[in-house]
Amino acid sequence: MKRIFNFSAGPSILPVEALQQAQTDLVDYQGTGMSIMEMSHRGKVYEAVHQEAIDNLRKILGVPDDYAILFLQGGGHEQFAWVPLNFLTEGKTADYMLAGAWGLKAYKEAQTIGKANAAADVTKIKPARMPSQGELKPTPGAAYLHITSNETIEGIQLKSFPKTDAPLVADMSSDILSRPIDVKSFGLIYAGAQKNVGPAGVTIVIVRKDWVEKGNPKIPNMFRYSTHLKENSLYNTPPCFAIYMVMLVTRLLLKKGGLAAIAETNRKKAQKLYETIDGSSGYYRGTADPAHRSDMNVTFRLPSEELEERFIKQAKEYSLDGLKGHRSVGGIRASIYNAFPAEGVDALVGYMKEFQKKNG
Amino acid sequence: MKRIFNFSAGPSILPVEALQQAQTDLVDYQGTGMSIMEMSHRGKVYEAVHQEAIDNLRKILGVPDDYAILFLQGGGHEQFAWVPLNFLTEGKTADYMLAGAWGLKAYKEAQTIGKANAAADVTKIKPARMPSQGELKPTPGAAYLHITSNETIEGIQLKSFPKTDAPLVADMSSDILSRPIDVKSFGLIYAGAQKNVGPAGVTIVIVRKDWVEKGNPKIPNMFRYSTHLKENSLYNTPPCFAIYMVMLVTRLLLKKGGLAAIAETNRKKAQKLYETIDGSSGYYRGTADPAHRSDMNVTFRLPSEELEERFIKQAKEYSLDGLKGHRSVGGIRASIYNAFPAEGVDALVGYMKEFQKKNG
Repeated sequence: MKRIFNFSAGPSILPVEALQQAQTDLVDYQGTGMSIMEMSHRGKVYEAVHQEAIDNLRKILGVPDDYAILFLQGGGHEQFAWVPLNFLTEGKTADYMLAGAWGLKAYKEAQTIGKANAAADVTKIKPARMPSQGELKPTPGAAYLHITSNETIEGIQLKSFPKTDAPLVADMSSDILSRPIDVKSFGLIYAGAQKNVGPAGVTIVIVRKDWVEKGNPKIPNMFRYSTHLKENSLYNTPPCFAIYMVMLVTRLLLKKGGLAAIAETNRKKAQKLYETIDGSSGYYRGTADPAHRSDMNVTFRLPSEELEERFIKQAKEYSLDGLKGHRSVGGIRASIYNAFPAEGVDALVGYMKEFQKKNG
Repeated sequence: MKRIFNFSAGPSILPVEALQQAQTDLVDYQGTGMSIMEMSHRGKVYEAVHQEAIDNLRKILGVPDDYAILFLQGGGHEQFAWVPLNFLTEGKTADYMLAGAWGLKAYKEAQTIGKANAAADVTKIKPARMPSQGELKPTPGAAYLHITSNETIEGIQLKSFPKTDAPLVADMSSDILSRPIDVKSFGLIYAGAQKNVGPAGVTIVIVRKDWVEKGNPKIPNMFRYSTHLKENSLYNTPPCFAIYMVMLVTRLLLKKGGLAAIAETNRKKAQKLYETIDGSSGYYRGTADPAHRSDMNVTFRLPSEELEERFIKQAKEYSLDGLKGHRSVGGIRASIYNAFPAEGVDALVGYMKEFQKKNG
């Protein structure tokens, strides 16, 4: 079996133990004589998988009982619409904190539904950073404040979450499960699974139950959080295989000693790369403000686009793949989510030093 | 490897060759050093899989060039909302042909969005059947006519499609790829993959391109067919693994000699079961009108609920699983989609005869 160091921004690397377990189970799941993909979602075998995935997430993230954990579809993009459909009702304004491309997309989608306000906007500021608490101008009585906890394209991450009177809604697609969070300070958290939790095709939503009940009842049933809360995410056929992968990934995470330990590991991995950038006498230039640097996506430039292209191409010879920055900004991006191994970071550090020596 | 005869209504049996290929590929896809689940959806390797799945479907179903094939998420349930969101605009009426539980659900969801009319309703008629062309009372200038080609719970199937002036929209979730269809007579076809095409988590939409352009531009971007058409279903991260499975399943189907041959095989499988029911001197009673019997879901009752329970329980001893009727109607349901083997049908026929002898 060949495995490379996969720096993809998402879909991205998964724990190899989870993949191996899925491989073993694929044709005959635990002696049932069928694949997990072939089973009724209302049968006991699948239901146990579904519930374990929920229970694992509840345990790891410390999700209180008055919050529901839902499995939906359509990724973060669909939640850009579902959140305002449910909570941005007539006469209300929703606040959006804008720092990067993803928050901006969420804000624009909300504008197709109701009145959305940019409560802070630092998207044009370079180097990229998150807004400060002081820069935030919330609307009194806002329906909610929407934030993006980590912006993958700009390589920036919120180190603390804003204080707000309105329910706080967070898109945590790219850093959920990477560090401890206080779920109680959020009204709703959503995350496409394809970075830290599983494959693309399932979206995790963690939401305060009493807020769900206040959601707009006049929207299509399928888009109401209350519909899925009542049925434990079995209102319609769920993406069973993707949820099964979430179950396997979270089962492994539970063995890793909690999110504080995981965050420390992630911080150390990122730090090695940022130190290499900062110690390169300006050959590598980080694109994010140092105080806001992401532990998930390390973004940097080389002296020229030509060198960047060579850097990406030659990296593959060292089994380092997925280093190309997002097509909207270019440059280099090393995404080092939970499952990305420390050895892969060391390999990239070595490669960066060698590349600079040869091309400096 | 243990495999049983899996009569589940969906998620349901998949071709074992597709599962075995997926198992081989799971940790290291074709020597790339990563799983297909871990790859960027914008990389060449995944894009080839994505495009092959589309091309295979186009070939098998004979989809003309002026129709797009899209991969979406949320199953049939989400399409219940997307179709009226896109096409049931202010001042318009959408017609719904109602014969079973799924059509009724689509109709009720449409009512949360606009004016929906039951152009025919035979849902309360027993034995279950589809409406005739004569029973259909279309609204002049209707936005579309929605039909459900196969109703899994009642075990009925449209043997021919209604003639209509309005664009015809078909939910083919439970019988797509089971028989030839003339795509040109439809405005839009949608299908959750989890019966004949792949695992749960991807929805196939086949839609006339010029109709898409007439869709309501005022709805959220994520729900507009035009958004996904423009980006070849790569606007947001697609459910890559589910699409990869669709690619594998359709690749196998292409080797089977076309949909006419597949339909013939399906018809023969179903016929054996209906003959056993009809030849049981009333011990087994089919729930569908014989002229409307489904080739996908064979539904029947036994003389008592107690016997039905025993029938389902003892069947498992013969490796026959998933025979329980839908919880809303009870009884027995044998779902025998494309991938269900003829030997499994023979095994069920044998079991039915033996059970009747012992419990008649």
